[in-house]
Amino acid sequence: MALDLTQYIASIPNFPKEGILFRDVTPIMQNPEAFRESVRLLAEYGRKVKADLIVGPESRGFVFGTPVALELNVGFAPVRKPGKLPRETISTTYELEYGVGELFMHKDSVKPGQRVLVIDDLLATGGTAKATAKMIEELGGVVAGFGFIIELSGLPGRKTLEGYDVYALMEMSDK
Amino acid sequence: MALDLTQYIASIPNFPKEGILFRDVTPIMQNPEAFRESVRLLAEYGRKVKADLIVGPESRGFVFGTPVALELNVGFAPVRKPGKLPRETISTTYELEYGVGELFMHKDSVKPGQRVLVIDDLLATGGTAKATAKMIEELGGVVAGFGFIIELSGLPGRKTLEGYDVYALMEMSDK
Repeated sequence: MALDLTQYIASIPNFPKEGILFRDVTPIMQNPEAFRESVRLLAEYGRKVKADLIVGPESRGFVFGTPVALELNVGFAPVRKPGKLPRETISTTYELEYGVGELFMHKDSVKPGQRVLVIDDLLATGGTAKATAKMIEELGGVVAGFGFIIELSGLPGRKTLEGYDVYALMEMSDK
Repeated sequence: MALDLTQYIASIPNFPKEGILFRDVTPIMQNPEAFRESVRLLAEYGRKVKADLIVGPESRGFVFGTPVALELNVGFAPVRKPGKLPRETISTTYELEYGVGELFMHKDSVKPGQRVLVIDDLLATGGTAKATAKMIEELGGVVAGFGFIIELSGLPGRKTLEGYDVYALMEMSDK
């Protein structure tokens, strides 16, 4: 019988602030069977979309993205916040609740024509994911798909990523 | 012949500030053979010290720590900066160049008696590593060892971690 991964998500009311039901994936990482199953499913999706590079945003995208990259025998490129990547970078801004954030990738991290699978833990508004896609495309890569552990229903993540292939291991409400 | 992993380290002068020679591990992640070999060596060390849990500090510790955890079929627990972990935490402070930083772990992330391998990319002053050990021990765990990609010579990392088992894939100068 398949492992029920939803049992490895902790739900914390009012974190990081009042009114938010935070979906916490750390129990997946703590359990090797649940972690392995998550990576297996994301890697299976990666094979389906013929990914030859994994990109993951700081920092829970690193947790799930790197094992998927190794499983597929492809490279991994990080998306990072300001001041973290030491070599030549490109950057893009994305909307935060108040103001804008900025994300960076190394210029040499995507080769033209590479099919990139973006991995992150959570699809909420899709802001980070969309910003990541923009950088991948600016570097000449093709966004093969997005793989998430959780998709939050009631938020416009899928709409933000319209036109892209999106896969999530489970759907959960944001309230 | 063994892969020469030093060829996959980029060295960037004066990053993040004047006088620092930054050792950048992102080329390892971009190359599946180098990444796999790094994980294999760290996992081999983990077997030697009989690790049954991997702990990795935010956020390059996530990159190398999670594949090692999967390779050893053990759990992974993150060490994070303030405001990131939603459940009950413990924390500890460590010295920064100016002032102090604070790191957090979930209280349930280490079980009493567990043998913990701490994985990170770089051993420099050892401040983060020592703070991580303190939290693991506060939670009743045993620090089985520290595994790094790079140990910077000329910095007091090993001295800071005196009494602990320390392994690094390579040594490089800090200048």
